[in-house]
Amino acid sequence: MRQSQLFTKTQKNAPKGEISLNAQLLIRGGFIHKEMAGVYTILPLGLRIINKIADIIRSEMNQTGGVEIQSAALQKKETWEKTGRWNDDVVDNWFKTKLKNDAELGLAFTHEEPLANMMKGFVSSYKDLPIYVYDIRSVFRNEVRAKSGIMRGREFFWKALYSFSKNEAEHNEYYEKAKTAYKNIFDRIGLGKETYLTFASGGSFSKYSHEFQTVCEAGEDIIYADEEKKVAVNKEVYTDDVLKNIGLSKEKLVEKKAIEVGNIFSLGHKFSEPLDLKYKDEKGMDQFVFMGCYGIGISRLMGTIVELNNDEKGIVWPESVAPFRVHLISLGKNDEAEKIYDNLQKNNVEILYDDRDASAGEKFADADLLGIPWRVVVSEKSLASGGVEVKKRSEEKGEIVKFEELIGKIR
Amino acid sequence: MRQSQLFTKTQKNAPKGEISLNAQLLIRGGFIHKEMAGVYTILPLGLRIINKIADIIRSEMNQTGGVEIQSAALQKKETWEKTGRWNDDVVDNWFKTKLKNDAELGLAFTHEEPLANMMKGFVSSYKDLPIYVYDIRSVFRNEVRAKSGIMRGREFFWKALYSFSKNEAEHNEYYEKAKTAYKNIFDRIGLGKETYLTFASGGSFSKYSHEFQTVCEAGEDIIYADEEKKVAVNKEVYTDDVLKNIGLSKEKLVEKKAIEVGNIFSLGHKFSEPLDLKYKDEKGMDQFVFMGCYGIGISRLMGTIVELNNDEKGIVWPESVAPFRVHLISLGKNDEAEKIYDNLQKNNVEILYDDRDASAGEKFADADLLGIPWRVVVSEKSLASGGVEVKKRSEEKGEIVKFEELIGKIR
Repeated sequence: MRQSQLFTKTQKNAPKGEISLNAQLLIRGGFIHKEMAGVYTILPLGLRIINKIADIIRSEMNQTGGVEIQSAALQKKETWEKTGRWNDDVVDNWFKTKLKNDAELGLAFTHEEPLANMMKGFVSSYKDLPIYVYDIRSVFRNEVRAKSGIMRGREFFWKALYSFSKNEAEHNEYYEKAKTAYKNIFDRIGLGKETYLTFASGGSFSKYSHEFQTVCEAGEDIIYADEEKKVAVNKEVYTDDVLKNIGLSKEKLVEKKAIEVGNIFSLGHKFSEPLDLKYKDEKGMDQFVFMGCYGIGISRLMGTIVELNNDEKGIVWPESVAPFRVHLISLGKNDEAEKIYDNLQKNNVEILYDDRDASAGEKFADADLLGIPWRVVVSEKSLASGGVEVKKRSEEKGEIVKFEELIGKIR
Repeated sequence: MRQSQLFTKTQKNAPKGEISLNAQLLIRGGFIHKEMAGVYTILPLGLRIINKIADIIRSEMNQTGGVEIQSAALQKKETWEKTGRWNDDVVDNWFKTKLKNDAELGLAFTHEEPLANMMKGFVSSYKDLPIYVYDIRSVFRNEVRAKSGIMRGREFFWKALYSFSKNEAEHNEYYEKAKTAYKNIFDRIGLGKETYLTFASGGSFSKYSHEFQTVCEAGEDIIYADEEKKVAVNKEVYTDDVLKNIGLSKEKLVEKKAIEVGNIFSLGHKFSEPLDLKYKDEKGMDQFVFMGCYGIGISRLMGTIVELNNDEKGIVWPESVAPFRVHLISLGKNDEAEKIYDNLQKNNVEILYDDRDASAGEKFADADLLGIPWRVVVSEKSLASGGVEVKKRSEEKGEIVKFEELIGKIR
């Protein structure tokens, strides 16, 4: 893409009132635009990142047997009343609205109820199970405060998978698969090292749920992490009993701030019972479906990646989620830059080409702020040396690379 | 994909109360699930179709110079008050909701106001224009009645592009490009023949807007079509004056029911003036940005395609938007079907493989209902003839095709 065609511009200063580092950098770089606290428009560069994260998640979910659907945002009161979650004292962050006939509707903050309700049309026998469906969409949470930038949105993108199993044993098998898939996701987007499988409070059907917590100063959670085992405990269940129960010893645990980037829950019959989601087992007996749910905040991941990958000049995107692989900068007009742009595109290298009429200093500062992994500069100086200057965003020094060696170098 | 892994099932009967043919067939085939009138969950087969339509639209929008963003659903009252459109007497299909502090928010039904407002941060000089941004997302319209299935949703997918030009001449140039792009889109998804460029009522800045109306008995609009010129007039502007003005003669026009599948509007300064979206021209003078907008209903297109492509047995998807290209059916268990499945997948042929333990009659009836373009049957009979039976959904008769000729045949 030509930078001259990108309508966004970088900004020297973040908007006042935006106190989180992730939103400051993302707004300054033109990745997102703030509509109000906790609500952002995703701009072209940001959308490329969101799509890359989503595609990585999609491939891992498909690997576990998940099938993708697109659920609705508008939700029926009656379904939620059956589980007691329509009540604002039970769920305190609903956005609600009304039809013209005054019937109340909810705006989706999650989908256990509508999906369990829908599955009644598709599940009758044990042969119909298990089912794993997931959904990548924006959901709505009416947060009183939204001060963490894109990490705590009132409207945010997430992936949620819902599992429908015959019984606890079948559920547990999938639950372990989901853990592995989540680990793969965090590895692939470059957060593997900092992300801990974390024991957190469970529910009516399981002693614990599991969170995936990424260690980060901007986090809103406190965890106690065993850095060797790569396992942690959320402060909310940090008791001697729990530590004993899960085999962690207090001396090895380090207190850390962390961001909850994912969570997985065993739901058991919590939703299938009130919504009457049953199947006939091999003996013809009615059984409730055993459910689980598995969430990952996609826009939150984008924010977390920024919090952990930046320097005083801007963002340093990991290659797997970067909006482009190469940032081509031409200093002055030259035909060589045009040729390189065409050639890399033909070779399916994702490239942003700074063809603007701007100073070298401005182009370099923008490139550092945008944080694309490989910077390729075409200047009179580089041309005199028979090539281009190639520098990784994460490294200090660049080197001259001959034209014919460029693709090999940046791949 | 293996059909045994697909959780959806076909249904013999549509849910009562669902009177539209498109929703009846889509629900019976398991493409969508009805949450309430005008609100549907898009199931795996349906999502594949939505994604294909969206990708065709995306490629044509990119071709015109459009860049994709993802706008927000939650919208600020203040922005809409400036253009007078917050008022429920002016816009009668708002869904509104509230923050915890009781501040009112709107749920997006379109994005002229928030985008014009956002562009103030990116547009200052004539050098920043033109800008073409588009958005593919679900939007919300609080319809009193929603009886046309997926063709008039309270929550529905659309693409909306917004153009920001320096002046009317620059705008008109893009407007013509958009017309061509829209024509390409309807051609590519198989609605080209039935779709008319239609003159409709304009606004404060233009005498007419243009709609794209697909002739169909299920349509809610009346148009008068010149079948030779492929141009029509919406009943709302069907007067002698208008006909004279646009050069159509009454005698050649045929009254038809039609579905409005797209529309394009010249907005002029209607939004830029109240929202104060200006730029400095070459002489340093302030000028208002000249806007246009260009919508296409994606879920409505899915419904329209169904209305126009079905028979008594079910849907007949055009190849460009079909959820899969091939429906492989094995009668009885046989290794050959497995081999063909693997082989076609390796050759990137999108294939749904009916590996279920079901009768031939059931499998054929499901295949007809689902409407995948190519049916490939592996049976003892076909194997005895050294191949498979290949039949197009749109044709009555199939033929035996040798294994080695299968890929050539269905491509």
